[in-house]
Amino acid sequence: MIDDLPSGLRARHLVEDDHPRVLSVLDAWWGGLKGEAGATERALLLPRLYFQHFTTTSFLVERDGGEIAAFLVGFLSQTEPDTAYVHFVGVDPVLHGQGTGQALYRSFFALARSHGRRHVRCITSPENSASRAFHTRLGFTASAVVPDYDGPRLDRVVFAIDLSADPAATP
Amino acid sequence: MIDDLPSGLRARHLVEDDHPRVLSVLDAWWGGLKGEAGATERALLLPRLYFQHFTTTSFLVERDGGEIAAFLVGFLSQTEPDTAYVHFVGVDPVLHGQGTGQALYRSFFALARSHGRRHVRCITSPENSASRAFHTRLGFTASAVVPDYDGPRLDRVVFAIDLSADPAATP
Repeated sequence: MIDDLPSGLRARHLVEDDHPRVLSVLDAWWGGLKGEAGATERALLLPRLYFQHFTTTSFLVERDGGEIAAFLVGFLSQTEPDTAYVHFVGVDPVLHGQGTGQALYRSFFALARSHGRRHVRCITSPENSASRAFHTRLGFTASAVVPDYDGPRLDRVVFAIDLSADPAATP
Repeated sequence: MIDDLPSGLRARHLVEDDHPRVLSVLDAWWGGLKGEAGATERALLLPRLYFQHFTTTSFLVERDGGEIAAFLVGFLSQTEPDTAYVHFVGVDPVLHGQGTGQALYRSFFALARSHGRRHVRCITSPENSASRAFHTRLGFTASAVVPDYDGPRLDRVVFAIDLSADPAATP
């Protein structure tokens, strides 16, 4: 399903039972950021519905032993027939810099393209400079910081890529 | 678009600019529950993406003067071709008991059916007894409380309705 993963990793589509497993690694990967409130915040961003209704465009990467290594939750826009959206991506920090996140995005691009989607959009928090650098390397164009984009005090940077125009988006 | 609304109300599909307007009425309708943390929690449950990518199955109800009276955010399941999902519904408390929520659901049922969807699912918090009674009246079947359904301490009741089997689901 994803060819260019580091060795010892394999990918599949998400299933509903992955939901509590993904939430639990999130807390570890985010270093328990903001404690119990942070765990709730992450759970609210990633409700079970994504693991029920958007599995066909979402991926889980596991180690040979079954331990979660990375995931990508995305969907095809229902409103915009030429757009796909990446909602949430996580990679085990010990695997950062090895191409796992890039492989996930390239697989999502290929899947989006197979559904006739030309544009992929996603967002990140302004303070997440690693995410901003990562998306720029992948060929995304970044917006300026949009204050209150997702609600009061939830500023965001918006990324967009045109899969038909950007050679960097070719798998 | 929705025929059986109380007089003085009219419905249309959501647009992106509705996002901050809906979030701001939410705080008022929920009585500022849990203060700033509560406002953030509601915003995280209703990110802008729903107002961009799932507008075609989501509704806003406004008063003649343009003030928001109610909304329903729903989508067609990408994984299950016979399922549609209602994610978030809000009705101005002063309008409760006048049929606005029921009209929104019936319109969503009709729209789901026109897309070949037979099942509609949604969830609520166990302590929201008004929501549980409302969904039961509409013909939904309720599950027992599912602990940690949406993450740690996020217990939920799951509702399901079979549009082809339940006469109460007929518009």
